[in-house]
Amino acid sequence: MYYEGKTKIVKVVEGHALIEFKDDITAGDGLKHDVMTNKGSICAETTAILMDYLSKKGIRTHLIEYVPPRTLKAVPLKMFPLEVVVRLKKAGSFVRRYGGVEGEDLPFPLVEFFIKDDERHDPMVCVDHLEILKIATKDQAEKMKETAREGHTRPEGVLRERWL
Amino acid sequence: MYYEGKTKIVKVVEGHALIEFKDDITAGDGLKHDVMTNKGSICAETTAILMDYLSKKGIRTHLIEYVPPRTLKAVPLKMFPLEVVVRLKKAGSFVRRYGGVEGEDLPFPLVEFFIKDDERHDPMVCVDHLEILKIATKDQAEKMKETAREGHTRPEGVLRERWL
Repeated sequence: MYYEGKTKIVKVVEGHALIEFKDDITAGDGLKHDVMTNKGSICAETTAILMDYLSKKGIRTHLIEYVPPRTLKAVPLKMFPLEVVVRLKKAGSFVRRYGGVEGEDLPFPLVEFFIKDDERHDPMVCVDHLEILKIATKDQAEKMKETAREGHTRPEGVLRERWL
Repeated sequence: MYYEGKTKIVKVVEGHALIEFKDDITAGDGLKHDVMTNKGSICAETTAILMDYLSKKGIRTHLIEYVPPRTLKAVPLKMFPLEVVVRLKKAGSFVRRYGGVEGEDLPFPLVEFFIKDDERHDPMVCVDHLEILKIATKDQAEKMKETAREGHTRPEGVLRERWL
């Protein structure tokens, strides 16, 4: 199995997934594209650090080990074609959609689901849509929400310690 | 109290709301505008027929009585600033957002919430957003979903009987 996307290459070798982070940077659902030296290795290492961090908090991840400089060895998993976003503050597309002040705290962590679909610009869905579109059952969606909230331990500390 | 919107005028007189349906037609969140003779009276009568129909099904509505040709006398209520949409089939903005075939049946009636906000083109929200934005509590939202589903008795029969 070999799959190449905008920023990663995934190979399945001997029952493991090898996720290689490319130096390509993209924006606007692939409309803008450039290459940045070392971007892949920085992203791979950052991801490995965050996955380790989650693992220590008792949240299981797909990471088996970091293979420097730009590859993660991981458990091959069937993926939900979703972006799961956890928000603590009003920012970005939330403010564009609903208004409010950038940086304002939310009363509780909000979990949002977006279908990964460049052509349709990753449209937002609610739990009922996930069932209707046969992407996930209600139970699976609620479990994703719960895990996403649990995993949402502010990571600034970890990053600062390692990179600054 | 007097409020004039794109297609209706609402007055509160002696504890009742008088909702007057205008002949104005608009599209694109008010970007397009025209006037169509009798549109207001047709909409007022259609609404009255549908509200009566719901009432007979045991679903309470705001309608007190139809005041021909273009006015409804109604209970003045505090409104949730929401459009509550019930879908039985894939169509319109659902297909634009998620793809699929126009007219295809959904496995169950889908209730969608949109915030009434012309400037932001009525953005879709999930139940969690309603709580975050202090528009409705989770209980209120679930109640709205339930009532919307209950009210969703295919109305083609009623319309056909009356208009064709």
